[in-house]
Amino acid sequence: MHIQKPTIILNPEIVRRNIARMAAKAKHSGVAFRPHFKTHQSAEIGAWFKDAGVTAITVSSVSMARYFAAAGWRDITIAFPVNWLEINAINALAAQIDLHLVLESTETARFLQENLQHPVKIWLKIDSGYGRTGIVWEHTAQLIQVAQAVQAADKLILRGLLTHSGQTYRVQNNPAEIQAMYAEVLARMQHVKYLLAENNLPDLKISIGDTPSCSVVADFGGVDEIRPGNFVFYDMTQVRIGACTIDDVGVAVACPVVAKHPERNVIIIYGGAVHLSKDYDVLPDGTPYFGRVALPTEHGWSAPLPDTYVKSLSQEHGILHTTPEILARINIGDVVTILPIHSCLTVDMLKRYQTPEGMMIDMLPSIHSDLL
Amino acid sequence: MHIQKPTIILNPEIVRRNIARMAAKAKHSGVAFRPHFKTHQSAEIGAWFKDAGVTAITVSSVSMARYFAAAGWRDITIAFPVNWLEINAINALAAQIDLHLVLESTETARFLQENLQHPVKIWLKIDSGYGRTGIVWEHTAQLIQVAQAVQAADKLILRGLLTHSGQTYRVQNNPAEIQAMYAEVLARMQHVKYLLAENNLPDLKISIGDTPSCSVVADFGGVDEIRPGNFVFYDMTQVRIGACTIDDVGVAVACPVVAKHPERNVIIIYGGAVHLSKDYDVLPDGTPYFGRVALPTEHGWSAPLPDTYVKSLSQEHGILHTTPEILARINIGDVVTILPIHSCLTVDMLKRYQTPEGMMIDMLPSIHSDLL
Repeated sequence: MHIQKPTIILNPEIVRRNIARMAAKAKHSGVAFRPHFKTHQSAEIGAWFKDAGVTAITVSSVSMARYFAAAGWRDITIAFPVNWLEINAINALAAQIDLHLVLESTETARFLQENLQHPVKIWLKIDSGYGRTGIVWEHTAQLIQVAQAVQAADKLILRGLLTHSGQTYRVQNNPAEIQAMYAEVLARMQHVKYLLAENNLPDLKISIGDTPSCSVVADFGGVDEIRPGNFVFYDMTQVRIGACTIDDVGVAVACPVVAKHPERNVIIIYGGAVHLSKDYDVLPDGTPYFGRVALPTEHGWSAPLPDTYVKSLSQEHGILHTTPEILARINIGDVVTILPIHSCLTVDMLKRYQTPEGMMIDMLPSIHSDLL
Repeated sequence: MHIQKPTIILNPEIVRRNIARMAAKAKHSGVAFRPHFKTHQSAEIGAWFKDAGVTAITVSSVSMARYFAAAGWRDITIAFPVNWLEINAINALAAQIDLHLVLESTETARFLQENLQHPVKIWLKIDSGYGRTGIVWEHTAQLIQVAQAVQAADKLILRGLLTHSGQTYRVQNNPAEIQAMYAEVLARMQHVKYLLAENNLPDLKISIGDTPSCSVVADFGGVDEIRPGNFVFYDMTQVRIGACTIDDVGVAVACPVVAKHPERNVIIIYGGAVHLSKDYDVLPDGTPYFGRVALPTEHGWSAPLPDTYVKSLSQEHGILHTTPEILARINIGDVVTILPIHSCLTVDMLKRYQTPEGMMIDMLPSIHSDLL
């Protein structure tokens, strides 16, 4: 690979395998597969999903919806509470595609009814235990009130209940625990569904989304739609959770080596917080780290080097902890490949992929691009 | 201000005041002022430094050096260990401008001597106690060996000793402690300077750089050059260190409010890790946080709201902790302004500034821009 500065290397074989596996699993379970495109943010990688039969997608911003609509996608869910300040762009999208929005308040239902020019499909955002946002699954009065507000608005077509059970990210390499969490989330979502049906609201679909559950659960009975995103690349966090193996990680950041400190087993790379993101995870012994380190190979990267990891980050510097043996093998001017902690954030930093064969793959530019 | 999505608001009055104050202080001390442009990364803001009499600058990558050379800067230090893999771009720059490079190894001295087409000025990177990279100030044999390797290379003009004393970032609101750290760093740098002079190496200049020292120290006697960068905007970290007051913070991120959770005093904003960065600091009680929260005003933003801060971040969501009184005053569809933890990283996420009057100020695009 030809590297001059920090560059995302994407292994197309791994990424296409991750896509095909999840698409097959959804098909086997008879659920709709509406992958979240916030992870890759690339029209070109989107086309690989089309090859796998995908026709409907999820995004997390109006900007992403516009980008993928321009790339030909005609059925898009913006899985983020409606941003009132982008109503003009939302109206333009609703005129053009089958647009699904997510809301969790009567205020937003009223705002949309007053300001939409075209009907849109609505999903109620449910907090099924994660505690980030959404109507808490056991807040009965609020659930009914918001659902009724949507139902009463002729611009809003009440379609379903949507949740992101991010609590699975707290699991430590324990697929059984993820399955138990999934079962609890499913029970809570079905509780809400039946509650609303009993209150003369329509039969609602259930959409779930987190990559750990979607990776580990074999059968999605009781759910209508899955929206995983991170699985397209996976990362060190998903390996730690037990959602994938290290061989499923589809991206790494190639970084030049610029200095060595043998007296403290440290290697300095050009590759810092503005390339990898400051998201961190912890090693089994509790040490925080910002990525594992591998070596580039003809078709991607090696297995991670033992006892070698990114121990801290400045704006442009990455500081690697390693062993005397590995330090002796790596020289200034070499390239190392960093397996990211959180691939969604890392790829968003660099805005372009390169394959080991040198092909460039573009993604959505900065949100202030004049195109958007 | 006209906001639709997360946007950096820059207060030009505060930023120009920060620039003027540091320029005046350097002039008063009789030291060269070579500000680090990695924080703002903007040709337009660079012009404000020209207005303050600045003619030489510091950057942290070859990409930034190319960008600012294209904007007319003719004297640039790349304060990062030389990246061998960008030697072609380095040669192109050295043909065009007065280029200063930083190195810390005989390997890099040898590489440059063999591969440079034009002479460049060299600064030895000294680790004066921070422990990130550079030759440790008390490693006498290594200091002499690297300095001699540079001195022996006719393409390399040995100019000085450069350090970044990032240890000042650990201080908790204690200017006296910063001054004591600065005095220690200065003594160490002078020790290295005299050591090399005694070993028949030329008289070397001393360049120091961290914003806390440059903000707090009144007189830079014994130093030849200062290279602060963050001071142009400051941020909540510098407020915590005691390097500035909250009134010196020159940028904030305007973010739309998209949901409210009165039952737990939480407000959800469109403004997440991809807008603010995941850098965090801790409140006085030890709680980690990702930014303070203020309200937009005609010319910028208000004082920070009491007991209100960004408590966590997802890719696009920001989760604010607040009080019942403030929660009642802020509505869905409003805009709040987030005072960043680390302005260098935050502005790098968004790649464009907006003034309260609506003027756009561009900055260096993503490092994979085809311009670079």
